Amino acid sequence: MMLKPAILAALIGVAALSFASPPASAQATGDLGVVIERASGSLLVIDQSEHASLGRVEGLGDLSHASVVYSPDERYAYVFGRDGGLSKVDILERRIAARIIQGGNSIGGAISDDGRLVAVSNYEPGGVRVFDADTLELVADIPTQSKTIGLVDIPGRRFVFTLWDEGETWIADFGAEEPKITKITGIGDFPYDALVTADGRTYIAGLFGEDHLTALDLWADTPMPRKILDGYAKDREGLPVYKMPHLEGWALAGDNFVLPAVGQHEVLWVDSRSLLETGRTATHGQPVFAMAQPDGRRVWVNFAHPLNDTIQVIDTLSKQVIHEFKPGPSVLHMEFTARGHEIWVSVRDAGLVKIYDTRSFRQIGEFAADSPSGIFFTARAHRGGL
Amino acid sequence: MMLKPAILAALIGVAALSFASPPASAQATGDLGVVIERASGSLLVIDQSEHASLGRVEGLGDLSHASVVYSPDERYAYVFGRDGGLSKVDILERRIAARIIQGGNSIGGAISDDGRLVAVSNYEPGGVRVFDADTLELVADIPTQSKTIGLVDIPGRRFVFTLWDEGETWIADFGAEEPKITKITGIGDFPYDALVTADGRTYIAGLFGEDHLTALDLWADTPMPRKILDGYAKDREGLPVYKMPHLEGWALAGDNFVLPAVGQHEVLWVDSRSLLETGRTATHGQPVFAMAQPDGRRVWVNFAHPLNDTIQVIDTLSKQVIHEFKPGPSVLHMEFTARGHEIWVSVRDAGLVKIYDTRSFRQIGEFAADSPSGIFFTARAHRGGL
Ligand code: DHE
Ligand code: DHE
Repeated sequence: MMLKPAILAALIGVAALSFASPPASAQATGDLGVVIERASGSLLVIDQSEHASLGRVEGLGDLSHASVVYSPDERYAYVFGRDGGLSKVDILERRIAARIIQGGNSIGGAISDDGRLVAVSNYEPGGVRVFDADTLELVADIPTQSKTIGLVDIPGRRFVFTLWDEGETWIADFGAEEPKITKITGIGDFPYDALVTADGRTYIAGLFGEDHLTALDLWADTPMPRKILDGYAKDREGLPVYKMPHLEGWALAGDNFVLPAVGQHEVLWVDSRSLLETGRTATHGQPVFAMAQPDGRRVWVNFAHPLNDTIQVIDTLSKQVIHEFKPGPSVLHMEFTARGHEIWVSVRDAGLVKIYDTRSFRQIGEFAADSPSGIFFTARAHRGGL
Repeated sequence: MMLKPAILAALIGVAALSFASPPASAQATGDLGVVIERASGSLLVIDQSEHASLGRVEGLGDLSHASVVYSPDERYAYVFGRDGGLSKVDILERRIAARIIQGGNSIGGAISDDGRLVAVSNYEPGGVRVFDADTLELVADIPTQSKTIGLVDIPGRRFVFTLWDEGETWIADFGAEEPKITKITGIGDFPYDALVTADGRTYIAGLFGEDHLTALDLWADTPMPRKILDGYAKDREGLPVYKMPHLEGWALAGDNFVLPAVGQHEVLWVDSRSLLETGRTATHGQPVFAMAQPDGRRVWVNFAHPLNDTIQVIDTLSKQVIHEFKPGPSVLHMEFTARGHEIWVSVRDAGLVKIYDTRSFRQIGEFAADSPSGIFFTARAHRGGL
């Protein structure tokens, strides 16, 4: 009823990109975002309300894997590239505001709750480097002698990360006069990724070397490692792990966290308080991302190669798959609008980003993108722990 | 370390307003907001990162009570005034983009999850009116023959509100072709306000005529009224209710909701799953807003006249007051930055908005405002149920 059919019709199915020059007049940033173009080292600035791409920014290095965080004003996207590149992209003026190569091989980053510090974790040479968000000047270098994984920000200008070789989690506190580091040992063998819950309280590491995960209560004065989901893969033949599942996809769905099971065709449900398993749902393939809608009512799952043309939607109450569809070849990522009315899907080998209404499951838009992978809306600026 | 001392020093304690003209160049909106100036029918556009006011917008009618929601792009603030005025303010250009008098006496409003519909609930003549968020043209009129309260938006382009006289809750669904209304009876005597949890699942109404609250599970096919906190004020002398507590202040702190008790000098803690009471904390006065930090770690409480010069901070784990301070005469409202590193406080009779660091409790800024009341940051655009 409120839709303007003419405009909608004009948008749906239009694959043309409009590369207008940067806005001369005022432009709000709350409904913008970026899509990583993984093959060409570029990104598209996208507009949620227009269902369209506004323009391309090039020269971002190796984005064959990339993730993004935003400044609090939702103007700058910090892009963490595979080659250790850290780029600060001005999405209003659609240009690179600053760019450095900060390490040899990096995989992720985070931004402090006050937006002043950007941290990057490195596989090579290992360790975490912290930069001034304005200038990208080095503020602190935290060497670890180990590949670092699971870097997240928590309240109070703090970062948490984990050491692959040592099985230690470190909390770096930049809120005090002098940065302070707290080390927690005994996390377990070969933590490969970690996440923190949205409130910044529970940090959970996935382990390659053991059949459980490890949780830390960061509200405790001295956080103690606690085993969870012990033996969850016992007696089960592991499937080949084509893609390491992304724990970051952990999301609160009602009273449960949902997570992609490692090497299995299923997602696990874990009570968010007790951290005990509450159920499993068999899926089409090996899940890559299991993402809860912002309201937690449903969980959307995509899958590893070769079953990656499909998305399944699971109902949170019944834990049943209630919908399945095929957006096209190589679905790499999904992103909800902040309040969950739409989901945007990267279909790499179709060169398209497709947009779906989450209630009706209908496709309501699409636009062209060059090998699209990650989609990141600016609303992430207002959330911690990413 | 990352702070720029010179800039900070220049900001702290500077009460001057800079009324620059609207920005000619690009300006992001993610860290902006508005402060209601309740006596003069105006608002200030504020900038979180600058700790300052950017300019004033006048001519908004009677704002002696007002609330605000935002468009998804964080450009437009919809201001609901006491006189039934609905104003759409362009915070980038700092001007009124549209304004109507939609009813005789209104108290609150909401915006649909897709940002296309703005709804207002009216005391006089009663009922809910729904407007096109672009044009403020009337889209739907839902008469009720009753004062309507507790209007909120929930996912799927739906609004929920409650009828004071009939004790009924209505769900208006604008997601389908034809708007559809579902009525739930038996809410209780004289519901005076209601809220929905952040995930849009649990709707809770406070009652004037009975000694309990009523909860609805909106995920159920047929939501059934359920009594909660039954008899919570039994055998207790009620204090005069100078200000009706704002249920909207309900916030999730760890595993609990915190709410201001009606007519008592205390806040109540309620388990977010069982909805059973888990504790009470005695407070300085009768609480008006009990607001949990975004991370849930602490709860900040302000109080009704004549004890309204004080704020207390309660620790979520111990439920103890851990800090108390006096920002000045008539503290009316508090707003956290999206990720909780700062809290902004309206001190009406000092004509100031004061800014505090939530971790150290130190004051880190302030600026002048004319009888400030509500403070609303644009990050609200990305949250439902407000
Ligand atoms: C640690 C890590 C993060 C969190 C970064 C942060 O918080 O800043 C992350 C995030 C991501 C994010 C950001 C997720 C988010 O929602 O924030 C995306 C889209 C993503 C798309 C992919 N990832 Fe990712 N990813 C890995 C690791 C990670 N990926 C791997 O180890 C793995 C298996 C092998 C590799 O190629 O490095 C891997 C393969 C993939 C893919 O194959 C995906 C699906 C497609 C692609 O383009 O590479 N990873
Ligand atoms: C129903 C309601 C809402 C939710 C609106 C929405 O969701 O759109 C609300 C919100 C609000 C909000 C927005 C809260 C938020 O965080 O969203 C504020 C700042 C506020 C400041 C006050 N309110 Fe409010 N308020 C009432 C009712 C309400 N106030 C009253 O019935 C009461 C007691 C009497 C009246 O004056 O109408 C009342 C007095 C006050 C005050 O005295 C306050 C503290 C100062 C003032 O300026 O009036 N009310």
